[in-house]
Amino acid sequence: MPITEPKNLKGTRDFGPEEMTKRLLVLEILRAIFNKYGYDPIETPAIEYAETILGKYGEEGDKLTYSFKDNGDRDIALRYDQTVPTARFVAANWSNLPMPFKRYQIGPVWRADKPQKGRYREFVQCDIDIIGTTSLVADAEVAAVLFDVFKAIGCDDFVIRVNSRALLNDLLQKAGVKEELVTPCIVAIDKLDKTSVDKVKELILALGVDKAVVAKIEETILSEKVRNELSSLEGESAKSMQTFFDLADGFGVEEKNIMLDLTLARGLDYYTGTTYEVIIPDFKVGSLAGGGRYDNLAEMFSNKSFPGVGIAFGFDRIVLWMEEQGTFDNLILASEVLVVQFPDVLKENMKTLKTLQEESINAELYVDAAKMDKQLKYADKKRIPWVIIQGSQEVEKGEVLLRNMSSGEQESVTLQEAIEKIN
Amino acid sequence: MPITEPKNLKGTRDFGPEEMTKRLLVLEILRAIFNKYGYDPIETPAIEYAETILGKYGEEGDKLTYSFKDNGDRDIALRYDQTVPTARFVAANWSNLPMPFKRYQIGPVWRADKPQKGRYREFVQCDIDIIGTTSLVADAEVAAVLFDVFKAIGCDDFVIRVNSRALLNDLLQKAGVKEELVTPCIVAIDKLDKTSVDKVKELILALGVDKAVVAKIEETILSEKVRNELSSLEGESAKSMQTFFDLADGFGVEEKNIMLDLTLARGLDYYTGTTYEVIIPDFKVGSLAGGGRYDNLAEMFSNKSFPGVGIAFGFDRIVLWMEEQGTFDNLILASEVLVVQFPDVLKENMKTLKTLQEESINAELYVDAAKMDKQLKYADKKRIPWVIIQGSQEVEKGEVLLRNMSSGEQESVTLQEAIEKIN
Repeated sequence: MPITEPKNLKGTRDFGPEEMTKRLLVLEILRAIFNKYGYDPIETPAIEYAETILGKYGEEGDKLTYSFKDNGDRDIALRYDQTVPTARFVAANWSNLPMPFKRYQIGPVWRADKPQKGRYREFVQCDIDIIGTTSLVADAEVAAVLFDVFKAIGCDDFVIRVNSRALLNDLLQKAGVKEELVTPCIVAIDKLDKTSVDKVKELILALGVDKAVVAKIEETILSEKVRNELSSLEGESAKSMQTFFDLADGFGVEEKNIMLDLTLARGLDYYTGTTYEVIIPDFKVGSLAGGGRYDNLAEMFSNKSFPGVGIAFGFDRIVLWMEEQGTFDNLILASEVLVVQFPDVLKENMKTLKTLQEESINAELYVDAAKMDKQLKYADKKRIPWVIIQGSQEVEKGEVLLRNMSSGEQESVTLQEAIEKIN
Repeated sequence: MPITEPKNLKGTRDFGPEEMTKRLLVLEILRAIFNKYGYDPIETPAIEYAETILGKYGEEGDKLTYSFKDNGDRDIALRYDQTVPTARFVAANWSNLPMPFKRYQIGPVWRADKPQKGRYREFVQCDIDIIGTTSLVADAEVAAVLFDVFKAIGCDDFVIRVNSRALLNDLLQKAGVKEELVTPCIVAIDKLDKTSVDKVKELILALGVDKAVVAKIEETILSEKVRNELSSLEGESAKSMQTFFDLADGFGVEEKNIMLDLTLARGLDYYTGTTYEVIIPDFKVGSLAGGGRYDNLAEMFSNKSFPGVGIAFGFDRIVLWMEEQGTFDNLILASEVLVVQFPDVLKENMKTLKTLQEESINAELYVDAAKMDKQLKYADKKRIPWVIIQGSQEVEKGEVLLRNMSSGEQESVTLQEAIEKIN
C-alpha cells in the first residue's frame, strides 16, 4: 500500500488526550447546568437533504455550506448550525413534544470557510432554547442559565449584556427616526463595539437622519451616561425590561453580572425581543455566549408559529478562557495510578491493580515488561499522578512503593495506606 | 420564505430527549470503564482529505465513502470509521504520545449505504485500542474492558468468544491444509454462524481440500466437542492462548463469561492474533462487540510499525439490548421536579425553585401562566417524577403540595419534607 501523508484537512483539528479531556470536562459542566434547569438533550444528523439547509442563511450561508451529490444523486449538505436542524425537528415532531420545548444540543457544524486563527471548518456548537413560549419568565431563565454556567466554570467578573429590540425601537422612534430607518440605525449601532460613538453618529447621519435626531440618539442611547440606565426610561418596553430584570433576580442572577446595554445590537435583525451577550472584560477574544428571543423558530418548515428564546455558547472560547486561568494546570487524564509491571510478580501486580480499581481508583498496569525508567516516563507523559512499584522485594515485605510523580518522592507503605494517600 | 418539508435524510436519525438521554447514559457507562483502565479520549474531525480515507477499505469501502469536492476544489471525504483517522493521528503524533498509546474514541461515521433495518448512513462508533505493543497483557486487558462493560450495563450471561489467528493457522496446517489454502479455509469457517458444519465442510471441499483433511478439520476445529477445548491442544500458539486466559483471569474476567471458540473467524483476514466477539445468547440481533490484534495500525501512513489490539462496541445494539431489558423503563430526563407557576405568588414559586436547585435537585418552573392541567400534562410528557404546587393558599400555610406523578397522589408538606421525599 502506498503511504499517504498523515495530515488533517486545514481548518479542522485533532484533539489529543489532554485537549479532549479538557473539552469533556467543560461539556460536563455545561450539561449539568442545562439539566439543572430541565433542558433535555436532542441530536440531529450531521448530513441533511441539501434543501433543508440551503436558502436558510442567506447567500453567504449557502456559499459556506458543504453540499454535494451522493451516489444516489441526492443533494446532501453538512449542517451549517444546529438551529435550522432543530427547527426541522420541532416542525416535524411538535405534537409529540412537551411544549414549551426546552432542549440543548451539542455537536459539530461545518463551514466551507477560509481557515483563520480561531476560525475553523469544523467546530462544536452548544446551544439551548425554550421553544413555544412568549413568556418573559423564559427570557429570565435563559439569563439564569448564562449566569450559572459562567459561575460554574469559575468566572466571577463576567457581564451578561442585555438589550431588547422593542426598547431600542421605541427609543429610536422617540428620538425621531422614521420607521423605515430604524433597522438601518440598529445596524449602525451594531458597529459600536468595533468603533467610536462619533463614527456611529457619522454612519447614522449618512443614512439621511437629521443632525438633531442623531444628537438625540447619542443623548438617549449611545452616551455612556445613559447606555446602562433603565430607571430613567418610560413606556411598555421599558416596563417589560424591568420585569425581565426582576425575574432574573428571582432566578438568582446577581446584579453585578447583568447589565442593560442599549447599544447591544447583536443580530437584532433576527431577534425580536431580548438579546444577550456575555463578555469577560479581561478576555479580549470576544463574547463567550450570545442569543436572544425570536418570533418563529420554524417558519421555514411549518405554518405553525414557534416563538422562543435561546443562546449559544462559544465552546472553544470557554475552553480557551479556562486554559488561560490555569484551570487545567493540574489536569489528570483517565489514569490516577500506574502499577509498574514486574514479570516475576505479575500476578501480585495484577491483584494490586484490581484492589485499586475496586476502590474506584482509575488505574492501569503497564502492559509491557519494560525497564522501570520507561514505565515512569509513560506515567509522566500520561500525567498520571501516582505510581505503585511492587517488585519481588516489596511483595515479600507485604508493602508497595508509592511514588508521587509531581514531587518525585516515594515511600514504602501498605497497599491500604497507599489507597488512603491516593484518595 | 417557501416552506421546506421537515424530513431528515433516509438512513439518518433524529434523537429526541428520551433517546438521547438513554444514549448519554450508555456513553457515561462506557466512558467510566475506559477511564477505569486508563484509556484516554481523542477526537479526529469528521471531514478529511479524501486521500486519507479512500483506498483504505477496498473497493466496497471506497464506494460507500461520502466524498466530494469543496469550493476550493479539494477532495474531501466523511470518515468511514475511526480506525483510519486514528492511524493517521498516531502516524503524525506518535513521538509526542505516551507509548503504548491507549485511546478511546466515540463519534459518528458515515456510509453511503442502502438504509435497512438497523443499518444507517450515519451511526456512532465507539472503540478502544492499545497501540504500540505486542504484549499479551494488552490482549487480556482488552478482554477485561469487555467484561467490565457488559457487567456495567447489567448483563450476566454474555460470552466473550475468543480465538487466535496463530492457533487456527496451526490447527489447519496440522490437519493437512496447504499454506495457500489456510486463509480461504478461514473464510469458509467464518460462514459457520450463518450455516451448518456440513455446509462449511462442503465449502472447504470446494476449495480443493482433500476429503480426509476436511474430516480432520471437523474433528479438530468444527465439531462441538473440540471447538471450545483449549486443554487438549499443544504447541506454541496453544500455550500463548493459555497465557492469555490466565492473564484475563488475573484482570478479573470470570470463566463463565469467556470462552475459546476455534470457529470464530471474525475479520481474521485483518487480525493477526487474538480475536474477540461478544454475544448475548438470548439476544438475536448479532454480536455486541468485536475486535482483535493487528500487526500494524498505521501502515498506510507511516514506515514505523504500530502493532496493537482493539475492540469496537456496537453502540446501537447495546442501547437496544438495555431497552429490551427494561433498563430505561423508569427513565428520568433532565428535570426531577416541576414547580407549577402561580402568577400571584410567582416570587414564592421562584424561591422554591432556587431552594430545590440548591439541594442539587434538577428542577424547573413552568414558564407560562397556564392552567394547572396543562402544567401537569407538561410534567407527564417530560417524565418529571415530582410536581410541587404552591398557590397562595399553600404560601399562607407555609406548605407545598407535593405530587407524585406516577401514583397521582399528592400531600401537603413543608418544602424541607418535600426535598427529603424527592431525595
